[in-house]
Amino acid sequence: MSLRDDALHMHKQNKGKLAVSSKVEIKDKEALSLAYSPGVAEPCKEIYEDERTLFDYTIKSNTVGVVTDGSAVLGLGNIGAKASLPVMEGKSVLFKNFAGVDSFPIALETNDVDEIVNTVKLMTPVFGGINLEDISAPRCFEIEERLKKETDIPVFHDDQHGTAIVTLSGLLNALKLTNRQMNQIRVVLNGAGAAGVAIVKLLHSFGVRDMIMCDSRGAIYDGRPNGMNPVKEEISKYTNRHQKQGELKDVIEGTDVFIGVSVAGALTEEMVKSMNDDPIIFAMANPTPEIMPELAKAAGASVIGTGRSDFPNQINNVLAFPGIFRGALDVRATHINSDMKKAAVKAIADLIPESELTADYVIPDPFNKEVAPQVARAVAKAAMDSGVSRIKVDPEDVYKKTLELTL
Amino acid sequence: MSLRDDALHMHKQNKGKLAVSSKVEIKDKEALSLAYSPGVAEPCKEIYEDERTLFDYTIKSNTVGVVTDGSAVLGLGNIGAKASLPVMEGKSVLFKNFAGVDSFPIALETNDVDEIVNTVKLMTPVFGGINLEDISAPRCFEIEERLKKETDIPVFHDDQHGTAIVTLSGLLNALKLTNRQMNQIRVVLNGAGAAGVAIVKLLHSFGVRDMIMCDSRGAIYDGRPNGMNPVKEEISKYTNRHQKQGELKDVIEGTDVFIGVSVAGALTEEMVKSMNDDPIIFAMANPTPEIMPELAKAAGASVIGTGRSDFPNQINNVLAFPGIFRGALDVRATHINSDMKKAAVKAIADLIPESELTADYVIPDPFNKEVAPQVARAVAKAAMDSGVSRIKVDPEDVYKKTLELTL
Repeated sequence: MSLRDDALHMHKQNKGKLAVSSKVEIKDKEALSLAYSPGVAEPCKEIYEDERTLFDYTIKSNTVGVVTDGSAVLGLGNIGAKASLPVMEGKSVLFKNFAGVDSFPIALETNDVDEIVNTVKLMTPVFGGINLEDISAPRCFEIEERLKKETDIPVFHDDQHGTAIVTLSGLLNALKLTNRQMNQIRVVLNGAGAAGVAIVKLLHSFGVRDMIMCDSRGAIYDGRPNGMNPVKEEISKYTNRHQKQGELKDVIEGTDVFIGVSVAGALTEEMVKSMNDDPIIFAMANPTPEIMPELAKAAGASVIGTGRSDFPNQINNVLAFPGIFRGALDVRATHINSDMKKAAVKAIADLIPESELTADYVIPDPFNKEVAPQVARAVAKAAMDSGVSRIKVDPEDVYKKTLELTL
Repeated sequence: MSLRDDALHMHKQNKGKLAVSSKVEIKDKEALSLAYSPGVAEPCKEIYEDERTLFDYTIKSNTVGVVTDGSAVLGLGNIGAKASLPVMEGKSVLFKNFAGVDSFPIALETNDVDEIVNTVKLMTPVFGGINLEDISAPRCFEIEERLKKETDIPVFHDDQHGTAIVTLSGLLNALKLTNRQMNQIRVVLNGAGAAGVAIVKLLHSFGVRDMIMCDSRGAIYDGRPNGMNPVKEEISKYTNRHQKQGELKDVIEGTDVFIGVSVAGALTEEMVKSMNDDPIIFAMANPTPEIMPELAKAAGASVIGTGRSDFPNQINNVLAFPGIFRGALDVRATHINSDMKKAAVKAIADLIPESELTADYVIPDPFNKEVAPQVARAVAKAAMDSGVSRIKVDPEDVYKKTLELTL
């Protein structure tokens, strides 16, 4: 059978991939009177008196909403809320399998920013966090920013930050391997969608100062007359300090790192050859990278990462989001802030000891059982240290619990 | 420990009562590539081509949204979305335990009809049905009517129809026991909230023609100047045909059946004595009935039902909603219509053979394992016969599957 047949069979056989299970058995009237009327009135009254106890008496403390409008699904584009649902269920499957997080798919039949924001706000009582998924740029930026301001739970657009975090982990290790420093490298990014924007911001927070971002119109610079939006305007203020203009091929010369979140074939061997010695290439277009690894290698690349599992160094979000939400939920965080994201980057990178780093191994395997526990511990600690946690816990307990949940 | 302590302990120990589980194991890259990228794109494409396949490839075919605004929760009133959550989780627990239905609690932070309707509409892709819960009258009527018109999945306000269905089941059996017919009885109802209105409508669909409904201002009649709303206006057109005015005590004389969905103590022994011989009393105010069973009996009542599990003949919605949604989901129904409700009424009543009927046993026990399977079979058949099913199935298969799911 083909992958297509296998995938359709698996989805059809099970009628989807999730079930809602009950943590209590209702075998007799006594159980019924505790889980439902009249006993259930007691936690209701407690929550009514003190909203904070919502985390104690309901599923909120372990439940994430996976929210989409189906406008930027995988490589399929704007296929709508209904057709996006298998992906959202898949995300929930990963949350559960990799970090014991309960989540539920919410696919909204609208592309209107106000409607999406308002709908998510109205349904937050049951959720301890919101994972935004597959929402197209630039609406995804506004939706995330508004929800971060207008709710009191973490809101995290995985296509932006998950990808950015794992990319930075790979870059950290690639720099160790090639003896370079964040504040010395020159970086060119191709693709100004959700992931590209988040990567630029995270690179900046790690001290990278020499960056040029390109979109389909070429290099973005302060004051470019066409194809700008508020997010690109913002980025143009702290990137491309020499205000270079031109296409990717014109601005890639002399850079150390290429990061692609764009389209197949965007990077040529000639462009790689025009980079500095031992360039680092993250070519993450899906399913076909900006350049195939063998070509990049032949052109002199030192470390090459892609989005694919059949090549070394897969930039896979599943390394990040399960542990990040696990850590955020365990301290009942109000936000996932920059400190928490940076802690996740380092935790993922540190899963590979320096002695084991090679050009084909700068990113850990997604099935490494230590990933989510280590990320959760680091994120929980960063949340507490940066003041966005509602409770204090021992980070070691977060680590141990996550390990147990995923074994 | 008290009920209060036990209930709080149970909710706190488990941090709520639900979990979202994965129906697929992700142990290796192959499983990951089927459940998530790239394989997951295949069911997405199928659904994009043909929306009907959403029922085949996602959890929609077995998933119900339990939707509330927290405005009329148990006997607690308008405690808000957050504090209502333990009840909604409890409802989901019952759906699962009694009929294998997956459901998820959606507690909305608004009491605005438009916002509630719009929010539910936007999130329908993942749901095969919507169970409205604990929304106060008269908003519940408008919300249900609008959602029934504006969505293509069953929308069922359990506080209305669940209560009405089980009440009618009990009444059917009480009439058999006392040799009366629906079209001959005189009925008085006290309470014009969600349940009262639904009971009047269902009585009417069963052929009851002599009914008077009372609210806190007394008998409702066509043209009453005060305390009316559109729903009461509608009811006044086909009830109280002699346009009687006055309080409950003035209009109860000479009736055969009292149905109370009002407040403790609303029915006195004198009122019962003023009814026809062998009156039937359903006193369902919670937690204290309109009249205590022993007093009603002393005053001459033949059959007495309440909402409580510590008296005989408990009118418990759990007899109805799990099997109703099971049957509706199994035929992918677009609505839960009057035929389906009537089928549920009869199925519940028929669970007690006529030879076993007694004054203390007109309603089956909620833990009778035959209830949900029989209800599901009857509802599935009625849906197909009345043309609101998307697919045809064998009702016996619905029965057998439900029995298996709940064992």
